[in-house]
Amino acid sequence: MTTLRNSRTVRIEWGDCDPAGIIFYPRYFEIFDASTAALFEHALGITKFEMFKTLEFAGWPLARTQAHFLKPTRFGDDVIVQTTVKFGRASFEIEHRLSLNDELCAECSEKRVWVVRDSEGRLKSHPVPQEVREKFGG
Amino acid sequence: MTTLRNSRTVRIEWGDCDPAGIIFYPRYFEIFDASTAALFEHALGITKFEMFKTLEFAGWPLARTQAHFLKPTRFGDDVIVQTTVKFGRASFEIEHRLSLNDELCAECSEKRVWVVRDSEGRLKSHPVPQEVREKFGG
Amino acid sequence: MTTLRNSRTVRIEWGDCDPAGIIFYPRYFEIFDASTAALFEHALGITKFEMFKTLEFAGWPLARTQAHFLKPTRFGDDVIVQTTVKFGRASFEIEHRLSLNDELCAECSEKRVWVVRDSEGRLKSHPVPQEVREKFGG
Amino acid sequence: MTTLRNSRTVRIEWGDCDPAGIIFYPRYFEIFDASTAALFEHALGITKFEMFKTLEFAGWPLARTQAHFLKPTRFGDDVIVQTTVKFGRASFEIEHRLSLNDELCAECSEKRVWVVRDSEGRLKSHPVPQEVREKFGG
Repeated sequence: MTTLRNSRTVRIEWGDCDPAGIIFYPRYFEIFDASTAALFEHALGITKFEMFKTLEFAGWPLARTQAHFLKPTRFGDDVIVQTTVKFGRASFEIEHRLSLNDELCAECSEKRVWVVRDSEGRLKSHPVPQEVREKFGG
Repeated sequence: MTTLRNSRTVRIEWGDCDPAGIIFYPRYFEIFDASTAALFEHALGITKFEMFKTLEFAGWPLARTQAHFLKPTRFGDDVIVQTTVKFGRASFEIEHRLSLNDELCAECSEKRVWVVRDSEGRLKSHPVPQEVREKFGG
Repeated sequence: MTTLRNSRTVRIEWGDCDPAGIIFYPRYFEIFDASTAALFEHALGITKFEMFKTLEFAGWPLARTQAHFLKPTRFGDDVIVQTTVKFGRASFEIEHRLSLNDELCAECSEKRVWVVRDSEGRLKSHPVPQEVREKFGG
Repeated sequence: MTTLRNSRTVRIEWGDCDPAGIIFYPRYFEIFDASTAALFEHALGITKFEMFKTLEFAGWPLARTQAHFLKPTRFGDDVIVQTTVKFGRASFEIEHRLSLNDELCAECSEKRVWVVRDSEGRLKSHPVPQEVREKFGG
């Protein structure tokens, strides 16, 4: 299986930081969530908004996440987030590595479930569509 | 017309504050949005979640807001938000007064539109239902 | 060692939720961070703001966190967060259990480091002060 | 006086949107706050972080803001924010215009105060430094 990787640059903003002057860590999870969406957009060529319209897809809720914080970042930093994915049947594992000037500052893993809506509108897990896997080379 | 008022206490948290050690002002708008919902919950006796299920209601998007910031607040402060409403036909005006130890720290006005979903799922404005006005004594 | 526990109720707000109608998970980390502060406030009888003024203390940056998400919550839910701590020498481990109607919805563990400022204003780890441990009965 | 303008593109993310599927409006104020910082960075050639180190500067707290919301935006939208400034003596007025596909979606005005720290560390207003005005051509 080929693993597709995506990389994006994110500016840490004043409003992301706390009274210690460093990033308030829940903001990292906002960055990681957007990085997961960016990886799929990079592979599929459509935004998450368009995924809802064109795929069997109602989201990828998080089942589990784990993160390490090695060095703080602060407002004005332009960090790089590298994101990779490995697919299971109805779930996938994401890894994010966030670095500043080639120094790793935070890393995060996620397990997410591919979901669709059942006939009553409830979310239920569903195999990752083959057309999605293929775009990742899998 | 009777104006119903609601008051609630909100703890300013560490994560609401910025590197200057005071609240990052977009957090005030999160507090005000929740205060608007709390006012309706107080008057109607049901949460906003239940309003979607039981009323002609698909939200109250903001058309306009204006705020003054008089004194900063910081983490550990327990502020009081007093909220009042005046109804128009398909819109309403909200006023919030946020104070700490009886000193006014911020005030905000909002104009919101009552919306429902049309047959194609789009949001459109709609008169505030009579049953809602009545609960406010109007 | 006695483990002190704190419990608090948190309303999930409209603005905490995403287009799937359920909580956007970074908001859980905001809730957990405030729950950690609430546990210390409960034990010490002072807010985090006051801790900066009266203790050898410059924060408790997160080294590592891990969370499981079992059931989604949504706006209008009043969830209960139960928080416990175990102290190491210059660090401590926190556990949060977030439940709705006695059903566990999310759980989270944190490893945090007790820090002070050195003479040049940089954050460095420091033993958890004895007066803090004693308030937790340890 | 020349008015300097800055323009930047911002992706609206899933986590910025609420259960109605559109942006939760406090996120706009986060975007506007970062746009104000970006305007100064564009004019001065240094980040806000560097401003604290090299200028008589301890922030620009908001005294007043006003916003109109004309059309909602949603996740996947790449909006353009155009920002301009007019300087007073110890304050300045900012205008933001946020548009999608050349259609104005939101506009916001801010009045901010230039502050420094007094000898006891308290924030107090201070004339906008001449070297800052000059960079804006004023």
